[in-house]
Amino acid sequence: MNAKMWDEIMEQPAALGGCLECNASVLQQVVARLKAQRIDRVVIAARGTSDHAGVYGKYALEMLVGTPVALAASSIYTIYNRTLKLDNALVIGISQSGRAEDVLEVLHGANESGALTVAITNYPDSPVAREARFHLCCEAGVERSVAATKTFITQIFLLALLSAEWAGDEALLKDLRAIPLRMAQTFDIAGEIGEKVERYRFMQECFVLARGVNYAVALEAALKIQETTFVRAKAFASSDFQHGPIAMIDSDIPVIVYAPDGPSLPNMSAMADRLASSGIELVVISNNRDLLSKGACAFAIPPESNDILSPFFNAAVAQMFACKLAVVKGMDPDNPKGLTKVTITR
Amino acid sequence: MNAKMWDEIMEQPAALGGCLECNASVLQQVVARLKAQRIDRVVIAARGTSDHAGVYGKYALEMLVGTPVALAASSIYTIYNRTLKLDNALVIGISQSGRAEDVLEVLHGANESGALTVAITNYPDSPVAREARFHLCCEAGVERSVAATKTFITQIFLLALLSAEWAGDEALLKDLRAIPLRMAQTFDIAGEIGEKVERYRFMQECFVLARGVNYAVALEAALKIQETTFVRAKAFASSDFQHGPIAMIDSDIPVIVYAPDGPSLPNMSAMADRLASSGIELVVISNNRDLLSKGACAFAIPPESNDILSPFFNAAVAQMFACKLAVVKGMDPDNPKGLTKVTITR
Repeated sequence: MNAKMWDEIMEQPAALGGCLECNASVLQQVVARLKAQRIDRVVIAARGTSDHAGVYGKYALEMLVGTPVALAASSIYTIYNRTLKLDNALVIGISQSGRAEDVLEVLHGANESGALTVAITNYPDSPVAREARFHLCCEAGVERSVAATKTFITQIFLLALLSAEWAGDEALLKDLRAIPLRMAQTFDIAGEIGEKVERYRFMQECFVLARGVNYAVALEAALKIQETTFVRAKAFASSDFQHGPIAMIDSDIPVIVYAPDGPSLPNMSAMADRLASSGIELVVISNNRDLLSKGACAFAIPPESNDILSPFFNAAVAQMFACKLAVVKGMDPDNPKGLTKVTITR
Repeated sequence: MNAKMWDEIMEQPAALGGCLECNASVLQQVVARLKAQRIDRVVIAARGTSDHAGVYGKYALEMLVGTPVALAASSIYTIYNRTLKLDNALVIGISQSGRAEDVLEVLHGANESGALTVAITNYPDSPVAREARFHLCCEAGVERSVAATKTFITQIFLLALLSAEWAGDEALLKDLRAIPLRMAQTFDIAGEIGEKVERYRFMQECFVLARGVNYAVALEAALKIQETTFVRAKAFASSDFQHGPIAMIDSDIPVIVYAPDGPSLPNMSAMADRLASSGIELVVISNNRDLLSKGACAFAIPPESNDILSPFFNAAVAQMFACKLAVVKGMDPDNPKGLTKVTITR
C-alpha cells in the first residue's frame, strides 16, 4: 500500500522503542517531583486524537495511581478567560505538533497557579513543550499523514509509563517494555483486514463501542474512520450507549465493538448479545473466541487481559481498518477533504 | 399535544420555582461545609441526561469557583474495582431516579475516602440520596416520559445555584431566581417550532454543535432527538468538531447550532460560516440576529449573554424541537423503542 498513513502505522513498534529509550530518565525525574510535591490531582488538556490519548491517560492514572483526573475544558481559559486553582495538581498538555494554542493557554495558567506541568508532544522545540516544566517526547519522527497514528500510540505509551512509574508497578513496567515487539504481532492480520474490509465498501455510518480504558480506542477508531473515509462513525462507551443512544441502532448500520478479555468483557458481551438479537451486524475486535464468533466480521488481537495493554493492539487494528477502508472506498487516506495536519483552536 | 413529555416540558418553570424554594437552606449548609473543609476539587458521577447536567456543572463550577472538576469514569469503581483518593474533594452524584448503581458506588467509595458527598436526585428516599451527606432534591414531581426534561432542568438549576452560592455571586443568584419566569417566555415559540419542524420529517441524521457551557445542551439536545425520533443525532463541541469530525459533513445532513450571544459567539459564528459555505443547512438557536439569519430554520431565544443562563432557554427549545419532531414523524415521544425510564449500569 502506498499511503503514508500505512507506513506510519507500520513504524509504530520502532517509534515505541525509541520513545521508551529516550524518556526513561525524564519519566523518573517527573515521578520524583510528583512525589516530592505530594501531587494529588491531575488535569489533562488536549484536542482531537491527543484528547483521546488523554482519555486513556485518565483511566490509566485513576486505575494505577488512584488520583482523580479531570479532562480540561479549555474554553474555561480561552473563551471565558478564567483560570483554575491548580496548586498541587499535575497538569498534562498533549499536542502532536506542540502548537495547540488552547493547550498552551491551559499550561500557562497552570504554571502561574503553581501546578507541576508536563507536555507530551512530538517536537521538543514547540511552544507547548517549552511552556511545560517537563517534556515527554513522542520521538515518533515526522508524521506526514493527517490522520495521526504513531503519535497517538507514543502518547498513550508515555501516559502508561508515567502511570506505572508513579504507581511503582514494576511488573507493569516490564510488560510495557515488551509492547513495542508485541504490537508488531498485530500486523500479522493486515492482509486479513484488507480482505474483510471489502464488505464495508458502501457503509455510510457505524457505531463504535468499548468499555473502560478501551473507550479511548473507540473514540480514536471512530475519528480515524471519520477522517479517512467520511463515514459517520460515532463512538460511545457501551455504558453510555444504553442510556438512550441505543435507540439509534438500525440493521443497515454495523456496530464495531472493541471487547478484549478482561474486566470489561462480561459487559461488552451482554451488549453484543443485545445488539445481535436486534439484528445488528457486529464487527468484533477481541481475543475472546466466544465473542469473536459473534461478529459478521472479526479480528483477533493477541491474548491479553490487562486493559492497560490491550489498547495498543486494538488501536493498531483500528488504524489498519480505517486506512484499508479508505483505499477500498477509492479515497486517499493521507489527504482528507477539509482537514489539515495542525488544527489550532482557541 | 397529548404527550406527557410535552406536559412535563411545560411544567418546568413551576418545577424550577419549587426547586429553588425547597433547596435554599440545604444549599447554604453545603456551601458552609465546602468552605469549612477547604474543598478544592470536584468529581461528578452520572449517566445519560444526568451526565449532561454534570457537563453543565463542570463548566459552571470551573467558571464561577475556579475549582477543577473531573467527570467520573464510573468503571474505575464498577469494572476495575479501584477507588480514588478523594479526601478534600466534593463528589456530586446525579441520578433522576436515585437508583443508578454506578453513581451509588462512586458516592460510597467517596464517603469511605473522606470526601464531602452531595446527591442530586428527584427522590429523597432513593439509595443515591441516602448515601450522600447532603441531598439536593429536584422537586420536579414524578417524571413519566422516558425522555427526561424537567429533571434535567432542575439538575442544572441546582448546579448553577450551588456554583453561584459557593462563589458568593449575589448578582448571579438574583438572575437565577428570575429563571423560572424567564424560561416560560421560551414557550412563546412553541407553535413556531411545531410548524418549522415539518421540514425535518424525513431527516435521518443531524449534527448538534455548541461551544463552552452550551456543549451540555448540545449533548442533551442530541440525546432528546435520539430517544424520541431515533434520528442519528451526534453532538460535538464546535472546537472538537473541527479536529476531524467535520470531515463527516454532508449536504443532506443539517447541523443544529446552539449559539447564543456571549463569549462563544465569535467562535460559533465562524463555524456557522464555514459550514454554510460548504452548502450545509443550518438550524440556528440563538438570540443574535445576524446568526439567526443564517439558518434555513431559526429559533430565537430571549436576550441573554451570560452562558450560565442561556442553557435554560436553549434546553427548552431542544426539548420542544425533539418532542414536536417525534409527533411529525408519527412517533410517540413518551415511549421510545427499547428504552426504559430507569437504566441501571454497573
